[in-house]
Amino acid sequence: MKVSELGEFGLIDRLAEMVARSRRKAPAPWQKLIVDIGDDAAAWQGDTSIQLATVDSLIEGVHFPPGRLPWRETGWKALAINLSDIAAMGGIPRYALVSLALPGTTEVDDVSLMYQGMIELAEKFEVAIVGGNISNAPQVMINITVLGSASSQAKHILTRATARPGEKIAATGYLGTAAAGLAILKQQAQADAEASATLIRAFRQPNPRIAEGQTLVEKGVKTAIDISDGLLSDLNHVCQASRVGARVEIDHVPILPLVKENLGDQALKLALAGGEDYELLFTASNEIITKVKQALACPVTIIGEIVAGKAEIALIDSQGRPFDLGKTGWDHFAAR
Amino acid sequence: MKVSELGEFGLIDRLAEMVARSRRKAPAPWQKLIVDIGDDAAAWQGDTSIQLATVDSLIEGVHFPPGRLPWRETGWKALAINLSDIAAMGGIPRYALVSLALPGTTEVDDVSLMYQGMIELAEKFEVAIVGGNISNAPQVMINITVLGSASSQAKHILTRATARPGEKIAATGYLGTAAAGLAILKQQAQADAEASATLIRAFRQPNPRIAEGQTLVEKGVKTAIDISDGLLSDLNHVCQASRVGARVEIDHVPILPLVKENLGDQALKLALAGGEDYELLFTASNEIITKVKQALACPVTIIGEIVAGKAEIALIDSQGRPFDLGKTGWDHFAAR
Repeated sequence: MKVSELGEFGLIDRLAEMVARSRRKAPAPWQKLIVDIGDDAAAWQGDTSIQLATVDSLIEGVHFPPGRLPWRETGWKALAINLSDIAAMGGIPRYALVSLALPGTTEVDDVSLMYQGMIELAEKFEVAIVGGNISNAPQVMINITVLGSASSQAKHILTRATARPGEKIAATGYLGTAAAGLAILKQQAQADAEASATLIRAFRQPNPRIAEGQTLVEKGVKTAIDISDGLLSDLNHVCQASRVGARVEIDHVPILPLVKENLGDQALKLALAGGEDYELLFTASNEIITKVKQALACPVTIIGEIVAGKAEIALIDSQGRPFDLGKTGWDHFAAR
Repeated sequence: MKVSELGEFGLIDRLAEMVARSRRKAPAPWQKLIVDIGDDAAAWQGDTSIQLATVDSLIEGVHFPPGRLPWRETGWKALAINLSDIAAMGGIPRYALVSLALPGTTEVDDVSLMYQGMIELAEKFEVAIVGGNISNAPQVMINITVLGSASSQAKHILTRATARPGEKIAATGYLGTAAAGLAILKQQAQADAEASATLIRAFRQPNPRIAEGQTLVEKGVKTAIDISDGLLSDLNHVCQASRVGARVEIDHVPILPLVKENLGDQALKLALAGGEDYELLFTASNEIITKVKQALACPVTIIGEIVAGKAEIALIDSQGRPFDLGKTGWDHFAAR
């Protein structure tokens, strides 16, 4: 069977199973592990606080169209997607290692610009870029590892596996904004110059929700994921890991007015399946979500609830009727 | 200027300088850092022990000829080169994150074989594979991050920057073995079937010197690097970082008899410049090296000494005359 037939998540499952078997054979290094393969980041008990580690890559032609992500934004985004994984665990990012692969014909000034973007974001969140390596390759790839920890006050971290029936599902910020920007870049959608700039910027230069993730922990949220693949795909990860179902009221999904105005009918699909907004999706009781709303400056919107049963997502329209979106979500080996 | 004109190490210097400037602007996360960009691994003071992190990648067509590294060995080697970086700091590897990029047409069974090789090595050194990610890409790339720590008894780690004039230069094991294997694979050299198998195995399945690195620390060695790029290239890294020169007696460079017998005149060049043996190169006093020899089962050979002056390496033959090898060493952006 080819990887493209099994799909990204099927392959991850198979490899995780192999690793799990080895875990039984050599248990020593696993004893302090809290969260392993299958969450936003790995987590283990350090000497005094929970330690977090995550890795993610940006590959030209795969994660961004060749020539459509300027160098500075490539650096920013490559770090941002990793910081977002630490945010989704409720952690604080501390150190980054950068593994770069690029053609020898790349301009040195362009690589410097990429590092400039990365450094800008690192400074903003006080992350130290402490190492890495550089290789030759036919296309540009940035692979970043970020190490972090839970705050020393935190008694838990956010995982995907703790959602319980009856909890509400909520999201920070707006969804579909980055996907709208990408649609404009790919000339699959149009907007006026100012709107285009805003939406393209959302795609190129996402802001990880670091402080927001820590606030979720403080207010008692247990379950979160960052929306990288798309609301439905990422909510599905939570449902699978927690063995629960979900109901999403499509009219409650938060969409920036700019996206609705400019992308019309496409807006909802982008918000449900578009991905790359790097907002936080979380589940908790109404009481906890109210506390989170009071503590955060960004919008926090309840979009549905967790239900008992199979790990399936039901989309509900304003009349309470089932809504069918067709096949959605992001698989790295599926055609995009 | 193109990256290929500036070269890998020139590019690293330029990017490290940019990061160093940002360090002055946002000093907080850097305060606990002990070793940053430019050594085998980054190191910082953890709550109770020194923490280590390193990243390295294997790219098809760049680090190994397409089709010439079987899948199982690809997994083994991708992890081995990272464990070797932790060994070169005298540390203990603990956790690994695996970032995989491969074409959708890759056979799932091949990816499983690759993981099998990685898991075999991880079990051998009690390393937990705790996370990673998978992307689509035109060629196979494995990018691994390994996190480790110094042993709790260790008062220091091994770096590149502490070599002092008068110290002897020593290496574990034999040099040029992996390069001889690669030469046979590329049909640039010939050997009988049994010798070929041994040499090719040295290239495909290197053994990181984890226990040996810790012994170096215990016996009082301060300076080490693993030989990944080649003896001269890696010794040059030590000389640059320590601001010292080196004299290497070419007749003392340890070469496996099998390599001398089968590769004749090529053997010395492969031992000096071939790379990928993942042996440890270190500097210390005669007394300390004697203690290291007594403690280790593998060969330990003194090959020269550190001298005051410019960061240059003088090769000396058995008559004490200068020896010229021509341009050598491994630059990822130079033609190989």
